[in-house]
Amino acid sequence: MGSIYGKTLKISVFGQSHSPAIGVTIDSFPAGHAVDMEALSRFMSRRAPGRDKYSTPRREADVPEFLSGIKDGVTCGAPICAVIRNTDAHSRDYDKLSGIPRPSHADYTSTVKYGGFADMSGGGHFSGRLTAPLCVAGALCLGALERNGVKVSASVESIGGVSGSEEEMLSVISDARRDGDSVGGIIRCVADGVPVGLGDPIFDGMENRIASIVFGIPGVRGIEFGRGFEAASMRGSEHNDPFTVKDGRVVTDTNNHGGILGGITSGMPVDFRVAMKPTPSIGKEQKSVNLKEMRETELTIGGRHDPCIALRALPCVEAACAIALLDAWLESGLPLAV
Amino acid sequence: MGSIYGKTLKISVFGQSHSPAIGVTIDSFPAGHAVDMEALSRFMSRRAPGRDKYSTPRREADVPEFLSGIKDGVTCGAPICAVIRNTDAHSRDYDKLSGIPRPSHADYTSTVKYGGFADMSGGGHFSGRLTAPLCVAGALCLGALERNGVKVSASVESIGGVSGSEEEMLSVISDARRDGDSVGGIIRCVADGVPVGLGDPIFDGMENRIASIVFGIPGVRGIEFGRGFEAASMRGSEHNDPFTVKDGRVVTDTNNHGGILGGITSGMPVDFRVAMKPTPSIGKEQKSVNLKEMRETELTIGGRHDPCIALRALPCVEAACAIALLDAWLESGLPLAV
Amino acid sequence: MGSIYGKTLKISVFGQSHSPAIGVTIDSFPAGHAVDMEALSRFMSRRAPGRDKYSTPRREADVPEFLSGIKDGVTCGAPICAVIRNTDAHSRDYDKLSGIPRPSHADYTSTVKYGGFADMSGGGHFSGRLTAPLCVAGALCLGALERNGVKVSASVESIGGVSGSEEEMLSVISDARRDGDSVGGIIRCVADGVPVGLGDPIFDGMENRIASIVFGIPGVRGIEFGRGFEAASMRGSEHNDPFTVKDGRVVTDTNNHGGILGGITSGMPVDFRVAMKPTPSIGKEQKSVNLKEMRETELTIGGRHDPCIALRALPCVEAACAIALLDAWLESGLPLAV
Amino acid sequence: MGSIYGKTLKISVFGQSHSPAIGVTIDSFPAGHAVDMEALSRFMSRRAPGRDKYSTPRREADVPEFLSGIKDGVTCGAPICAVIRNTDAHSRDYDKLSGIPRPSHADYTSTVKYGGFADMSGGGHFSGRLTAPLCVAGALCLGALERNGVKVSASVESIGGVSGSEEEMLSVISDARRDGDSVGGIIRCVADGVPVGLGDPIFDGMENRIASIVFGIPGVRGIEFGRGFEAASMRGSEHNDPFTVKDGRVVTDTNNHGGILGGITSGMPVDFRVAMKPTPSIGKEQKSVNLKEMRETELTIGGRHDPCIALRALPCVEAACAIALLDAWLESGLPLAV
Repeated sequence: MGSIYGKTLKISVFGQSHSPAIGVTIDSFPAGHAVDMEALSRFMSRRAPGRDKYSTPRREADVPEFLSGIKDGVTCGAPICAVIRNTDAHSRDYDKLSGIPRPSHADYTSTVKYGGFADMSGGGHFSGRLTAPLCVAGALCLGALERNGVKVSASVESIGGVSGSEEEMLSVISDARRDGDSVGGIIRCVADGVPVGLGDPIFDGMENRIASIVFGIPGVRGIEFGRGFEAASMRGSEHNDPFTVKDGRVVTDTNNHGGILGGITSGMPVDFRVAMKPTPSIGKEQKSVNLKEMRETELTIGGRHDPCIALRALPCVEAACAIALLDAWLESGLPLAV
Repeated sequence: MGSIYGKTLKISVFGQSHSPAIGVTIDSFPAGHAVDMEALSRFMSRRAPGRDKYSTPRREADVPEFLSGIKDGVTCGAPICAVIRNTDAHSRDYDKLSGIPRPSHADYTSTVKYGGFADMSGGGHFSGRLTAPLCVAGALCLGALERNGVKVSASVESIGGVSGSEEEMLSVISDARRDGDSVGGIIRCVADGVPVGLGDPIFDGMENRIASIVFGIPGVRGIEFGRGFEAASMRGSEHNDPFTVKDGRVVTDTNNHGGILGGITSGMPVDFRVAMKPTPSIGKEQKSVNLKEMRETELTIGGRHDPCIALRALPCVEAACAIALLDAWLESGLPLAV
Repeated sequence: MGSIYGKTLKISVFGQSHSPAIGVTIDSFPAGHAVDMEALSRFMSRRAPGRDKYSTPRREADVPEFLSGIKDGVTCGAPICAVIRNTDAHSRDYDKLSGIPRPSHADYTSTVKYGGFADMSGGGHFSGRLTAPLCVAGALCLGALERNGVKVSASVESIGGVSGSEEEMLSVISDARRDGDSVGGIIRCVADGVPVGLGDPIFDGMENRIASIVFGIPGVRGIEFGRGFEAASMRGSEHNDPFTVKDGRVVTDTNNHGGILGGITSGMPVDFRVAMKPTPSIGKEQKSVNLKEMRETELTIGGRHDPCIALRALPCVEAACAIALLDAWLESGLPLAV
Repeated sequence: MGSIYGKTLKISVFGQSHSPAIGVTIDSFPAGHAVDMEALSRFMSRRAPGRDKYSTPRREADVPEFLSGIKDGVTCGAPICAVIRNTDAHSRDYDKLSGIPRPSHADYTSTVKYGGFADMSGGGHFSGRLTAPLCVAGALCLGALERNGVKVSASVESIGGVSGSEEEMLSVISDARRDGDSVGGIIRCVADGVPVGLGDPIFDGMENRIASIVFGIPGVRGIEFGRGFEAASMRGSEHNDPFTVKDGRVVTDTNNHGGILGGITSGMPVDFRVAMKPTPSIGKEQKSVNLKEMRETELTIGGRHDPCIALRALPCVEAACAIALLDAWLESGLPLAV
C-alpha cells in the first residue's frame, strides 16, 4: 500500500483503525514555523467523533504527540512525525464481520489484493479514522498558509439533496439515523488569498493536485472546480471570465474558473465542490456474500457510525486543500514567510 | 513545469503548440508488446482536428514517429519516445494576442509564473494539442489492456446540457459555431474487464490516479465516479451495492461504486464521468486587460477553434484511463500477458 | 529536509537525536511476512551503542515499538511505522556548542540552510542515531530476503589502514581512544543468493540504488562495486569475467563485476566496499569559528562518542543493502515468497 | 526500464544504440536561460567518438535537435526535448553476437530480465552512446550554473594505474589498443563556486545525489568524495577540516570533506573521484556461453571500441555533477539568476 502524497512536501499517513496508533510523517515542511497547538487542537476537534448526536459516539481525544521535527514549538526542518494512540477501539464489534464483506466498503477488494493478510478490523488502513493524521498535517499547512495571507474554509452545501438552512439539513441526518440509515452530502471549499502562480500545466495542475489528495478522504465520489459539471451546459461567452483591473491588480469579473487557469492559480479564490457518499455502514440488514463458502448471506453491521460523514469531513477537505496548496507553493519558488 | 504522470509507468509529455515537435516519453512500459500501428493510427484520427465541421479545420497528420523503445514493432523494455512534428502551425494568428490574456486561458497565469519567458504561441505547452502525445501513450496502454481482457470506452453523454440523440447534440454545436460561440459537454468513460486489485488505499486509489491524469486534459472541470454527485442525495441503503455470486465470481447487483472500493478495483466496470467546459477561444469580442499598460481593453480571437472540445476529448479520456489502469496494474503484481 | 528512500518500497526516516523519539515509516512492504522480533532485536543490538569499550557508552535499549502495519506478528500490507524513544539523551553535553560548528559535522551547513531553526542538539536529524530506524527497516527487509534465499553480510575489512586480525584492528581503535582521537575503516558487504534481474539500466541500476542509500549512513565517504577503484588499473582482458555453465546455471568464473552488469544483478554475489571516515567528534581541542562574532576560536567536544563508527555501521550497511535489493525486487516483477 | 533522474529537475533519457534516435527530456528546467549552442556543441564534441586515435573511429555528429522547451534560443519553462539521430550504426557488427553474451556487458542480464525482447544491438539502451543525451542535459545545466558562478571541471587522474604526464597516460592507452585490449582510469571532478546549502540530510545528500547519477555512466565502478577511501586510514584529528574566517566568509583550512557536510554543500569546492573500468569490448578472444544450447563457447567481438572510456567520460561526469547540483539548487530555495 502506498499512502504518500506530495511532490516536495511529502505526507505519509500510517496506521489502522485498531493498530496501537495512527499517525503521519511530514517531510520537507519548511523550518521556522511556530505551531499553534491550541489552533491545532480546535481544528482536530472539528473532525473528532462523539461531539454531538449527528456523529458517531466513539470518543477519542485525537490529541497528536509530536515525536520529531518540532523544537520548542517551532518546526526545525527535519521530518515531522505525529502519532495518535488508538485508545477506544472495540474490535469485537467488527470481528464478526470477517469473511463477509460489508457492501460499499474496502473489505472485499482488500481481502483479494492483500491475500487475506489485510488487517481490516474497524476498516483497517481504509478507515475514516486515518483522516485524523491527515488533519494534523493539514493544520500545520493551514497555519503556514494563514501567516501568508491564505484562508481555507469548507462548508456543507447540501445534505441528502437538501440545501438551505442548517436546521433542515440536520433534520435530514436525524431522519436517516432514526431509520438506521445514512445520507450523503456536498461540501464546498474556498481558499482566499492564494497568490498567482501555484501549480503547473498538464499533470501537476492545481486541479490534479487537489483532486489527487481529496480522493484520499474515504467516501469522496466526485470533485468539481469553479462551475464544474454546470460548465458543461454553458456557452463559452457565458463561462469565460473577463479580465479586469481592480486596485492595481488583474482580476476577473466572475470566477467560473474557480481560481485556476491552465493548472495555475490565478489569484482569484480557489473554489471547488466535493461529493460525499452516504456512510456505507448502516444499521439495516444488507445482502452480502460469505467469501469462504461462496454463498449469499445476510449481514447486519453493529458498531458506532456517523449517519453522515460529510459533516466531519469538512476539516479533512480543508486539510487536503491546504496540503496541496503548500506543496505547490514550495515548488513555485515564491517566497513563504515564517 | 512538470509534465510527468505515473508511479511505475511514467508518461512524460513535451512540446508546445508551435515548437518543432510535440511528443511523449514512456518509461517502464513492459517489454514484449506488439504495437498495432493501424489501431494506433485509427485511435489518433479520432482525436485529430479537421475531420468534420464540428471541429477546428486545422489539419495535422498527427502520425507519431517512434524514436526508441520499439524494435521490429515490439516494445523492447527501453523507454519509448514518440514525436509528432508541428507542420501546420499559424503562429501569426496568435502573435497579435501577446500582452492581452485570453479569458479562461492560461495566458495570464503562465505569464506571471514564467516571468514572461513562457512560449504561449498557440497555447504553448498548455495547448489541447498536447493531448496528441497523451493519446499515443494511451493507445499503447489500451493495446496492452485489450490483450488482457480490458476494454475502455468513452462516449458523449450530453452537449450544452442536451443529452439524447446524436443529431440533437450536434445541432447544439452547430448553433454555437454559427454564433461564434462554443459549448461544453459531459463524457462518460467505462472500463470493462478490469481485474480485482488495481489501486491502493488513501492517496494512490484508482480514483486519485484517474482524476490526477484526467485533469491533465485541458478543459476538464470535474470528475465523478459511480453515482458521483448524485450519491450525495442518496441514502446508504440505496447507494450500497449488495454483493452476490454470479458464475462463481463475487460481483455486485448494482454498480453505484463505479468499480472502485477503498481505492481498489472491485472487478465491476470502472465507471466515471468528466465535465468539459466550453472552448474558451470564441469568435466573439471579449473583455480583457492590456498587461503592460494595466488597462482594460477589448479582444477578438482569430485562428481556428473547436466549438466543442468534448467530442475530440473522447479518445483523450480513454487514453488517460488506460494509462492510469496500466500503471496501477504494473504495481499490483498481477500478471500481465504480452 | 527529504529523508525518503525508495521507488516502490519507500522508507521514510524521522527524528532528531534529542526529539521525543526517532523512527521509520515503511510504505508498500508486502503483506504476509512474519516479523521475527528476536532476530530484529539481535540485529538492533549489533548497532546499539554501549556494548563494549570500542563504542560510545551511551546506552539505549533501541527496542522499536511497531505502531502500525503489523497484525499478530505478520505484515498486513498497510504502512509500517516503528518508533524508538530517546530516553538517554544528555542535551546539556551539546548545548555549549551552539554557535560554534564542530569540524566535519553538519552544524555549519545546517545552520546556514535552515536559517538557524535546525535542531542540531546531539547532531539532530543528522545524527548517527538515525541509523537505528534504518536498521529496523533493514531487519524487516533482511527477513523477507532470507525467506527467498538471499543472505546479506557485512564485515570490517580494515581499520585505520590496518587489515588482518581482529585483535590488531581493535588495538588501532584502543590507541585512538586513548589519544582522544578516532579512526576510519573500510566495510565490505556481500549479498549471496540474489536472483538475476534486479535493477534497471542507467539511473536505476543496482549500483545507483545501493550507493544512494549507503551514503545515507553518516560518515560514508566512498563506495565501490566489484573490483572498484582497482579496476581503473586493470586491462579489460583481466577485468572481464568469462561466462561459464555450472550446475545448469550461467555463472562467471570470477566476480570482478560484483554481481551487477548494466545495473542489473547477474546472479553472482553482489559485492561492494564502503569507506567510513574517522568519527568527527574527538576529545582533542579543535579550531573553529564563532559564527555570531565571525571570529576564530577553539572548541573541545564533550559527550560520548565512538572512536570508530565503522564497527557499529556494519548492520547499517547490511540494512541499506537489503532495503535497496527488496525495493528493486518488488519492481522487478519476480515472485517473492512470504 | 526506468531511466529518469532527479527530484525537481527531471532528466529522462531514451534511445537504444541502433534505434532511430536517442535523446533526453528535461522537465522543470527554469525559464529564461539562454542556451549557448556553440558552447553546447563544443561540450558535445568532447564526448563524441572518432576525434583521435585514442577513441573509437565511429563518427556521429551528435548535434542535438531541440524539439521543445526553447523559444528563440531561451528556455521557456516547458519540458525540453532534444534528440540525436543515429546515423552511423553498423548493426551488422553486432548481430552475430546474439545468443552469446559479451563478458562484463549487460547482454546476459538484460536477456534474462526482459525475456528476450531487449534490443541489445550495439548495447541497446545500455550503450555508452546514451551518455550523449546526458551530456545535452548537462550542458544546459552547466550553462545555468556558470551564470551563477559555479564551474564544474573533470580531469583524468590516472590511466591503467599510471598517473602523471598526459604523454605517459596516452601511451598506456596506445599499448592496450595495440594488444587488442583496453584499460581503466580514474577521473576527478571539482565544482568551484557552489553556494552553501545544496542537498539534504540522509538519503538526499549531495553525495547520494551525485553518486546516484554518476553510476548512470556505463563503466563506473566506484565513487569517493573528499579524501574518500583514504579517509578510512586517517585519524579524526587529521581528517577533520578546521573552520576559519577568510575574506568575511566561513571556510575550512583543508577540504578533506570534499565540499559536503551532512549531505549539504559547505561552500568549499565539491570534489569527488570516479573509477572507470576498462572497456569490456576488447578485440581478444574471450570465453562465454551459448545461451540457447547452454554450452561454453568462444567469442570474438568485432566493431569499433574505445580502448579507454575514461577519456570520453570526462564531459559525462561534468554533466552528471551539474545536473545533480542544479536539481538540488532548484529545491534549495536559493535564488538562481538567469
